[in-house]
Amino acid sequence: MQSARIHSYGEPLVIEDIPEPNLLHGQQVIVKVGACGLCHSDLHLINGDWKESIPLKLPITPGHEIAGRIEEIGKAVPQQFGQIGDAVAVFGGWGCGVCIHCKGGDEQSCTYANWPGIMTNGGFAEYIVVDSYRFLVKLNGTEGSQRIKGGLNIVEEIAPLTDAGLTPYRAIKKVRSMLGPGKSIAIVGIGGLGFYAIQYAKILGQSADVIALDMRDEKLELAKEIGADHFLKISSSDSQSNLPKIKEEVSRITSGKGIDVIVDCVGAENTIYDSLRLLNKGGALVVVGLFGEQIRAPLVPFVINEYKIFGSLWGNYNELCEVIELAANHKLKHELTRFSLPEINKAIDLLKRGNVRGRAVIVP
Amino acid sequence: MQSARIHSYGEPLVIEDIPEPNLLHGQQVIVKVGACGLCHSDLHLINGDWKESIPLKLPITPGHEIAGRIEEIGKAVPQQFGQIGDAVAVFGGWGCGVCIHCKGGDEQSCTYANWPGIMTNGGFAEYIVVDSYRFLVKLNGTEGSQRIKGGLNIVEEIAPLTDAGLTPYRAIKKVRSMLGPGKSIAIVGIGGLGFYAIQYAKILGQSADVIALDMRDEKLELAKEIGADHFLKISSSDSQSNLPKIKEEVSRITSGKGIDVIVDCVGAENTIYDSLRLLNKGGALVVVGLFGEQIRAPLVPFVINEYKIFGSLWGNYNELCEVIELAANHKLKHELTRFSLPEINKAIDLLKRGNVRGRAVIVP
Amino acid sequence: MQSARIHSYGEPLVIEDIPEPNLLHGQQVIVKVGACGLCHSDLHLINGDWKESIPLKLPITPGHEIAGRIEEIGKAVPQQFGQIGDAVAVFGGWGCGVCIHCKGGDEQSCTYANWPGIMTNGGFAEYIVVDSYRFLVKLNGTEGSQRIKGGLNIVEEIAPLTDAGLTPYRAIKKVRSMLGPGKSIAIVGIGGLGFYAIQYAKILGQSADVIALDMRDEKLELAKEIGADHFLKISSSDSQSNLPKIKEEVSRITSGKGIDVIVDCVGAENTIYDSLRLLNKGGALVVVGLFGEQIRAPLVPFVINEYKIFGSLWGNYNELCEVIELAANHKLKHELTRFSLPEINKAIDLLKRGNVRGRAVIVP
Amino acid sequence: MQSARIHSYGEPLVIEDIPEPNLLHGQQVIVKVGACGLCHSDLHLINGDWKESIPLKLPITPGHEIAGRIEEIGKAVPQQFGQIGDAVAVFGGWGCGVCIHCKGGDEQSCTYANWPGIMTNGGFAEYIVVDSYRFLVKLNGTEGSQRIKGGLNIVEEIAPLTDAGLTPYRAIKKVRSMLGPGKSIAIVGIGGLGFYAIQYAKILGQSADVIALDMRDEKLELAKEIGADHFLKISSSDSQSNLPKIKEEVSRITSGKGIDVIVDCVGAENTIYDSLRLLNKGGALVVVGLFGEQIRAPLVPFVINEYKIFGSLWGNYNELCEVIELAANHKLKHELTRFSLPEINKAIDLLKRGNVRGRAVIVP
Repeated sequence: MQSARIHSYGEPLVIEDIPEPNLLHGQQVIVKVGACGLCHSDLHLINGDWKESIPLKLPITPGHEIAGRIEEIGKAVPQQFGQIGDAVAVFGGWGCGVCIHCKGGDEQSCTYANWPGIMTNGGFAEYIVVDSYRFLVKLNGTEGSQRIKGGLNIVEEIAPLTDAGLTPYRAIKKVRSMLGPGKSIAIVGIGGLGFYAIQYAKILGQSADVIALDMRDEKLELAKEIGADHFLKISSSDSQSNLPKIKEEVSRITSGKGIDVIVDCVGAENTIYDSLRLLNKGGALVVVGLFGEQIRAPLVPFVINEYKIFGSLWGNYNELCEVIELAANHKLKHELTRFSLPEINKAIDLLKRGNVRGRAVIVP
Repeated sequence: MQSARIHSYGEPLVIEDIPEPNLLHGQQVIVKVGACGLCHSDLHLINGDWKESIPLKLPITPGHEIAGRIEEIGKAVPQQFGQIGDAVAVFGGWGCGVCIHCKGGDEQSCTYANWPGIMTNGGFAEYIVVDSYRFLVKLNGTEGSQRIKGGLNIVEEIAPLTDAGLTPYRAIKKVRSMLGPGKSIAIVGIGGLGFYAIQYAKILGQSADVIALDMRDEKLELAKEIGADHFLKISSSDSQSNLPKIKEEVSRITSGKGIDVIVDCVGAENTIYDSLRLLNKGGALVVVGLFGEQIRAPLVPFVINEYKIFGSLWGNYNELCEVIELAANHKLKHELTRFSLPEINKAIDLLKRGNVRGRAVIVP
Repeated sequence: MQSARIHSYGEPLVIEDIPEPNLLHGQQVIVKVGACGLCHSDLHLINGDWKESIPLKLPITPGHEIAGRIEEIGKAVPQQFGQIGDAVAVFGGWGCGVCIHCKGGDEQSCTYANWPGIMTNGGFAEYIVVDSYRFLVKLNGTEGSQRIKGGLNIVEEIAPLTDAGLTPYRAIKKVRSMLGPGKSIAIVGIGGLGFYAIQYAKILGQSADVIALDMRDEKLELAKEIGADHFLKISSSDSQSNLPKIKEEVSRITSGKGIDVIVDCVGAENTIYDSLRLLNKGGALVVVGLFGEQIRAPLVPFVINEYKIFGSLWGNYNELCEVIELAANHKLKHELTRFSLPEINKAIDLLKRGNVRGRAVIVP
Repeated sequence: MQSARIHSYGEPLVIEDIPEPNLLHGQQVIVKVGACGLCHSDLHLINGDWKESIPLKLPITPGHEIAGRIEEIGKAVPQQFGQIGDAVAVFGGWGCGVCIHCKGGDEQSCTYANWPGIMTNGGFAEYIVVDSYRFLVKLNGTEGSQRIKGGLNIVEEIAPLTDAGLTPYRAIKKVRSMLGPGKSIAIVGIGGLGFYAIQYAKILGQSADVIALDMRDEKLELAKEIGADHFLKISSSDSQSNLPKIKEEVSRITSGKGIDVIVDCVGAENTIYDSLRLLNKGGALVVVGLFGEQIRAPLVPFVINEYKIFGSLWGNYNELCEVIELAANHKLKHELTRFSLPEINKAIDLLKRGNVRGRAVIVP
């Protein structure tokens, strides 16, 4: 089968024919990849940025935002959880199923994590071996057995939901009890994650005002199209901060209170620092972006105002089902650019330069 | 001033001129009543149904859903909390401010409750003495001092929000963490409370499916107008139950799971009993209606399925502010029939016979 | 191997030699049963009370409170989750691992439940096949792999923790946010579950007053030994209720407020009804006992006081780990009567007549 | 009456006779001060450190940890909330009673805060005017009216509970849902706050392991006396960090997991930074100390491990009642050094030099 693999860090992926995979035990499932999203994490991995924290034996196939159809199925897979031909999304947070995190429903935080496309072979190939049917979400639910109502066939739209569309969902769900009438939520950075975050802020916000912050006019324009209520253009990190002006506008929008929840999809040192100066008393900052090196915040206002900071990572299986449920009910907008598998190095270059419109999706 | 008072239980209210009230201490405020909602609780009170649980010295002025303008103001009232002419809603759950419930933010559950229109003189009069500025919600917020953004002048629409519009809000807010994509919430009884409950289910439901249940086609029609997604006609309590058919439809709507949250705005013995047979595993029933005598439920499925039942009473001050915030932002629909104070006995008769369209509001 | 099996409902178990089980797939584990608790549920099952709701193909081996040692191990079991000779408890809520309940951490509520000793062969035998290593709790934790610190060898004490010791833990954990200084929690029925419930009320109660209610003096005496603070003798259900006297004593103990949380380990119609008359405003009743037919409660006080009722079933894997952690740290008292496997019918007779001191444990 | 007042910042307090205060309105109460705790905040205030953030008109009487007896009472004070001679604690977070924080139960976070001893005259005097009976906690509860059971007369022990004993209570209560069997909580800094924090960690920890960290052996010794389970000596901030050794010991204590909750009563830049390296996945850091300038944390592990940081300020009225309830039931240990009012400057000097054993309490 065709695949795109890392042979050495920092080099283009090698497009090559490799043997099709086989089932190794009865719980495994082989999925024919219908689409696999391309993500900034892939760039880090390919570039070797993580080679020390996640040591890998090369070559390896990256790609962790996967959707497709079941091609072959292990003998121990109960019928209701998958049959040949079923359209499926692949939940990427493969866990052991036993540790305290897995048993608590958060497999993506497993002590023995083995993520496809990051720690083991992923989706930039024609086929992928999914280590257990427990990691599949059937897209065409049959009654009683699965959660997704209605039918969903557009796997290109589903693939990015398994990460880019999942991470901001969890981030906002964590703090939804702080939202509601008269409250406000801001999304910092309207890129891959922020695009979905704005939409979830409307859905989970229970009528809270949704504020978009970005450095680029076209991103604020996009935020408007998908439902944000207010738009603040922040200055780029290199130039002079326009925080005082932003504070003034926030004060106007929130009747002097400040913002209740800020979700930082950038995670730069200055976006974090500045966000903490825009919060309402008791407010929360959720950080999902990983751009910067550190979190820095002045201590006294943090304690006096009882601020909170949450780190948020990816999402769990049930959260992925909820996100797919939204898509199945046509409550999410998508923005994709498709590439074939041989075009993947071109897609990588475009993504590096910030020139992909919406999410890049590889269609093998 | 003109007033409508109970002189003896079970008789029409006496429309009569009485002296205007005076301020008794520095924290009191006199409000010129702009509108006062008429409620089934008023019928109970007037009829003497509560004379044992709430003994009153007659005559007394009923009316507890009050909005209007500040007419006179005590000396100890800080300027930011009210000035003559300010439009205000009157929060009716007057509490002591000290007991564990008041200090916990739930004054409506105060150990020493003294509710206007129920335990002390209320709003079916030209003026009412509000015992403390702590019970006013300013409708035109000034920056930093109050929560309501924008301006609100239609006190007729605001008055019913202080009870009919507040009670279902609290009920649904209690269980909003159980709602979201792929979840469902049903409202039983699309009357005074249910009319608002449907709207809050959409706002707080985070994309949960909203199911309306009622015995009357026109009420289901109304539910459709205000945004419900599914409509189930239940048989009247006297006739043969159509529960098996309802269960089948619920199964279809929820892919065989059952309903996650049911809010019972009727509270009849059979609506409660039947609701518990429609719940999803782990589901919750919130009871706000008080029509019946008792709650009755089969034990084993209740325990095995980990069902929950919550009683919910009225709402607190902050919840009222949230409801008014929704109204101020034009996110609520209202349905009112106006009556003048001298017409109040006619309004009472119509309400008794179920012939008022929407909420009856007395405009003195 | 020796086993005790149901051949026909309502008859004594047949003690017989049957072939030792084999592994059917790579995730299974064979456990040599060290001890298996005997429970009222076993009586129901053996008596055929559940033959309609849970149809079984006889003969079958009951017994669902199992602890022992690993005898044989499937090839797909990762080394850190079990090796031959390891002491283990068997979590009995075997679930599919995929449905919303399993993925949410509550496998015991699985849509496709297959509980050992109830739906498939259980622990009244020398060996049991555990369907997946995901259902084992290793009692001797190795660093990083498992949660139980220290060493635990007394499997007789561990076996009953998997149900009798787990069910009240979950029940109280559900409402622990309502407990703390100045709060109170009552346990109704100091039998198999109540014995542990009292202890958890002290551990999770955060200094809340713990009140024991039972019909028998010796049970109240036992409650005292394990740490309860107050003791109320309720009249037996047949005779005249002494509720007025109980209410008076509750009022004295709680300074007139009523009890914040009541855990009903009996579940009779009258214990539920009476409990709801002893609650503080906003109080909760958690029902785990299944003695009665129905829940019955007066409606108006339920709504007005914002009472809550929760059904609670068994417990999940992480909760079982917490319970075992308590035992491993010598924070739980146990009370057991041991029987050999051939004595099981004698044990059943004694249990039926209420003549077993503490938990009956079968030691094959 | 005798008082100790700030006449100019940075100078010793002036001990002087001033007129006794009068009631200005009907809700006020005059309390004869029985004891008033001396706190590091007092040093800041007296030194003028806050003169810009809290501008004051001098002279002013500091002292915000106040307990005593009611001397005179306003006409609008309901009888059940206080009578002449009643022993009372003074809740110091005086709020407006109307803003969203006050109505939510957190008066100490009021938008219009007016704290005694910090913003208006406090307790280093023979008498204090309490602005409303809503800020009193009656120490001898009468049935139904108040929450404190039993009798409490030792006002010296109660006074410090209103701040030093309240702040760590709220901090730990915020995160108590993360505690329980198998969990761990660490207290950094066993000074005025930490002394109570250790005790609350045992009470609210639900059997979690309690770890004390301090630079001084005698403080770890003290932590042992009041119930901590583990003791880690951290190096002083100036010298070489011993974090690697601390990490190793934490790993041993927690079976390799890390600490679930850390409460930092110091708030230095290095204690915060180091704490974040000791947390378990999903762990929380609660900061109450205000020693440092800023919070600093490495970003990637913060997000990947889903850490949380909470600021926590003082406590609310109900929390104060809970703390006093613990004291009334003899569940708290106290450590005090008494000074007379004329000795206050000596007490201040000793406190500055860290030479007061336990809490300094001024007894006028």
